[in-house]
Amino acid sequence: MPDYNAPLRDLRFVLHQVFDAPALWARLPALSETVDAATADAILEEAAKVTGSLIAPLNRSGDEEGAQWVAGEVHTPAGFKQAYATYIQGGWVGLSGNPAYGGMGMPKMLAVAFEEMLYAANASFALYSALSSGACLAIDAHASEALKSTYLPPMYEGRWAGSMCLTEAHAGTDLGIIRTRAEPQADGSYSISGSKIFITGGEQDLTENIIHLVLAKLPGAPAGPKGISLFLVPKVLVGGDGSLGARNAVSCGSIEHKMGIKASSTCVINFDGAQGWLIGEANKGLAAMFTMMNYERLSIGIQGIGCAEASYQAAAAYARERLQSRAASGKVAPDQAADPIIVHADVRRMLLSMKAMTEGGRAFACYVGQQLDLSKFSEDAAERQQAEALVALLTPLAKAFFTDSGLDSCVHGQQVFGGHGYIREWGQEQLVRDVRIAQIYEGTNGIQALDLLGRKVVAGGGAALRQFATEVRHFAHQHETPYGGELVTALERLEAVSGWLLEQAKTDANAVGAASVEYLHLFGYVAYAYMWARMAAVAEARRADDEAFYAGKLATAAFYFARLLPRTLSLEASIRAGSAPLYGLAAEQF
Amino acid sequence: MPDYNAPLRDLRFVLHQVFDAPALWARLPALSETVDAATADAILEEAAKVTGSLIAPLNRSGDEEGAQWVAGEVHTPAGFKQAYATYIQGGWVGLSGNPAYGGMGMPKMLAVAFEEMLYAANASFALYSALSSGACLAIDAHASEALKSTYLPPMYEGRWAGSMCLTEAHAGTDLGIIRTRAEPQADGSYSISGSKIFITGGEQDLTENIIHLVLAKLPGAPAGPKGISLFLVPKVLVGGDGSLGARNAVSCGSIEHKMGIKASSTCVINFDGAQGWLIGEANKGLAAMFTMMNYERLSIGIQGIGCAEASYQAAAAYARERLQSRAASGKVAPDQAADPIIVHADVRRMLLSMKAMTEGGRAFACYVGQQLDLSKFSEDAAERQQAEALVALLTPLAKAFFTDSGLDSCVHGQQVFGGHGYIREWGQEQLVRDVRIAQIYEGTNGIQALDLLGRKVVAGGGAALRQFATEVRHFAHQHETPYGGELVTALERLEAVSGWLLEQAKTDANAVGAASVEYLHLFGYVAYAYMWARMAAVAEARRADDEAFYAGKLATAAFYFARLLPRTLSLEASIRAGSAPLYGLAAEQF
Repeated sequence: MPDYNAPLRDLRFVLHQVFDAPALWARLPALSETVDAATADAILEEAAKVTGSLIAPLNRSGDEEGAQWVAGEVHTPAGFKQAYATYIQGGWVGLSGNPAYGGMGMPKMLAVAFEEMLYAANASFALYSALSSGACLAIDAHASEALKSTYLPPMYEGRWAGSMCLTEAHAGTDLGIIRTRAEPQADGSYSISGSKIFITGGEQDLTENIIHLVLAKLPGAPAGPKGISLFLVPKVLVGGDGSLGARNAVSCGSIEHKMGIKASSTCVINFDGAQGWLIGEANKGLAAMFTMMNYERLSIGIQGIGCAEASYQAAAAYARERLQSRAASGKVAPDQAADPIIVHADVRRMLLSMKAMTEGGRAFACYVGQQLDLSKFSEDAAERQQAEALVALLTPLAKAFFTDSGLDSCVHGQQVFGGHGYIREWGQEQLVRDVRIAQIYEGTNGIQALDLLGRKVVAGGGAALRQFATEVRHFAHQHETPYGGELVTALERLEAVSGWLLEQAKTDANAVGAASVEYLHLFGYVAYAYMWARMAAVAEARRADDEAFYAGKLATAAFYFARLLPRTLSLEASIRAGSAPLYGLAAEQF
Repeated sequence: MPDYNAPLRDLRFVLHQVFDAPALWARLPALSETVDAATADAILEEAAKVTGSLIAPLNRSGDEEGAQWVAGEVHTPAGFKQAYATYIQGGWVGLSGNPAYGGMGMPKMLAVAFEEMLYAANASFALYSALSSGACLAIDAHASEALKSTYLPPMYEGRWAGSMCLTEAHAGTDLGIIRTRAEPQADGSYSISGSKIFITGGEQDLTENIIHLVLAKLPGAPAGPKGISLFLVPKVLVGGDGSLGARNAVSCGSIEHKMGIKASSTCVINFDGAQGWLIGEANKGLAAMFTMMNYERLSIGIQGIGCAEASYQAAAAYARERLQSRAASGKVAPDQAADPIIVHADVRRMLLSMKAMTEGGRAFACYVGQQLDLSKFSEDAAERQQAEALVALLTPLAKAFFTDSGLDSCVHGQQVFGGHGYIREWGQEQLVRDVRIAQIYEGTNGIQALDLLGRKVVAGGGAALRQFATEVRHFAHQHETPYGGELVTALERLEAVSGWLLEQAKTDANAVGAASVEYLHLFGYVAYAYMWARMAAVAEARRADDEAFYAGKLATAAFYFARLLPRTLSLEASIRAGSAPLYGLAAEQF
């Protein structure tokens, strides 16, 4: 299996040049003391080291061995424990955590780059800390001071992990019907009872404690999503001084046998009168949990980019080395039995599709990170508000489009290997299996699409989309870029389809659901066109500095606009066919 | 894991009604004595029984256990041996084999229906006999009378199996550079030495003997594909009376650990001076092997349909039962906590996409089978020739389009299950893993696309395409169908793109490779439009006979034309972008 090398040059290109993060950080007081270009580069380089040399080497062996469940305990694969202990010493779990409780306070624009490396190196390993970071965010935003000061420092340190307990056997997408109960106790805590499934890292042997964030219903709570509360339930009870006490009534009933991310434990977690504490207000748990879920959605989206990058690196290297058949335009390596397959047009098509989508996604992740930073750190209320609107609009898009593209890319990366792509030892098939979950968990991509079109576009009357469109149009008109025209045309297509859908939704209850996934993809291709136009503008301006690098960016942009962006044509046509073709069959006719 | 139930009604609809196979059989003397509608139905029903109750139940357990290699021997998973012994008693391996040597002489139109069931029930199990059938075809077409009478009867019986030994570690797509050697011996046989990889069923414990068809080079043979010969090399040497003798110098060096089809052994087969016999003429082995490869290509294509059908059946059943959230247009099951997810538009989109593509593929497989039967059994030379031209044109299309659609469908079928789709015990993820190989082996789908566009369209100046177009246009004009207009429009798009590519190919050596995969998909959607127009025409004419069934067909046709056929728009635009965007980067810039 090939090594993973973090694409530092590309990550810096996006962070420093395309989005000029250092200039942004310098103008935001909360960040100006914390981070600058040099600090960011040092962090990226350290991240490249830890992911490439410590974590990536455990990816294949972790897949072969898998997480094991023995008598209620989970054993992570060989090497995970030691690697995790080394990893947390770098403070990575608290990278963008609140400094008041031991976090490093780094901007999200930087954190997304780190997350990409972590998922690329080893998606299963990444999940053990990704959930902790998200749980911390929800605790920091909604919990009492007492809970925050007790739980956040060891969680940022990585000594304790977090988990997210939402799903029950009968309730996945539809959390309104969960059955887990919380009974108030005399001491102000709650007794939690119920069974949760699909709990990533719900039990493991890496940390001293696991802090479960659990959705449950209080006695007499309203039915449906408005009767759900959020509780903090530690695996091991914690004393007032932060010391570990008795085991809480929390147990792992079993783990799942899955298609991929086999080294990540996916647990049934049983709460049998476990002691827990309310986070935030009663019956407002879903909103509080969404702080974590939105974080995880972007994070899981980035899993799509990370796996795709890993697959791309391996496929490009293989295509340069594997000799097979001759170039259509004449021998390229006449002294060898055949030419390297990278000469063949269809191999290039697959590699360029991967490259264009992965780099477009990387830029878009940084862009969403920028909006998250603005919404959190800007001193200007209007700027914060605008950024928040973009974050709300673009988070479901990022989660689903990164991961749908991630599967496509990993399938391409497997195909480049021919028969070897199907063999486990070569590693490409694992990436297909590992990335596949990212389209399913954290809200299926169908649910993300409903959120994007239904809640973020239609319910808001298209306001957030208009804001995004104004920004894109502003860019296209202000900068000299060979793709300004194509970008505006694509944007107009998105706007026209959106306007048509806003109209349809007034009279057709199924209009949103019928169009949502194609709409998300249409939006995604337009968003990436914006990213590629921005990257091309920078590459043209800087071309003289490093011809090979920037010419490569321009050639990839050219490929994107010529060969991938036209997919919007079909998406529009499918959407405009409306919902009627979906309702021609009765349930029993399927 | 849900049961597999062969879609007998749909198979009969295609065979009897859409293509009126019994009428064709009645007019072909070689078939009129062999098969009629009642015989065909009896065979289909028996096939449904054997696949549904004998073979399908071994699919999940076979995946868990996998084929095992111990000291040179392969052990198939528990139950395979007994099931195989029962299975071959039905004569299925020789279903369309030559009656002169013990085959049943059944038409391919019928055999494709059986193959679909077999792959749907258990793709790994199916492969153990699929290779035998293909090997028999090559032996029957090219081998000497002595070889035929010795080897075909036990192979048709299924007592002996066949294998196809092409690939070497350094030579997959590029067979011209193989290194396996064949030295002529005094007795007229050859001594074969070399190592082959990725040999499906190259070793197993199901049959007494395995007949390897091996590509090798004779001393002094020309370099490249014109210096390859085909040899028959039995695992166990066979006496003049057909009795088994000593082991030949053929051994299994190891088996691969794969993403899927784990119960199928994928072997390294070493020939160490093994005794073999020439099939056909020296140095013309590749052409002879293509008899088998073309058979296997259609067969492997049908694996795509079979896996997709299995995934669809499970997904449709799950969507009818799983309760989650409410229908957008109001509660459908007010007495339950939530509605069945089949009410949701996006779930319907996924199911209908699977249904439309799988049924389109099923019809197209029958259509290609019809052409194979005409090319083999017609008494009219012109009709045979026309059918042969269509078979040559449509075989690569069927292989690649069935399997690309097959992966899409299995991914959809997994997605319908949400988180459960990722868990092994539910079975949907296995179908994704199992179907994925079908895009890779038997010539990758990229190679099929080059064959279709380069050899079958461009090299022939578009003649075969014109023949196909004439037939489609004839149908569209002759029959009253609501989709005649859409069909002709789609056909014209294919013709226009083909014409443009014929021109491009004159001056651009990369024109074919740059367009080939998108071209194959464009062709595929047009071909399925032809199938759906034919199915819709029949359904309209017969609607009064069985409203629910035929209205279902019409609704699926409506979905296909409204929501899937528009994909041709983007495919055309991508193709017309030409090859230049693929060659903007040097190999080291990837």
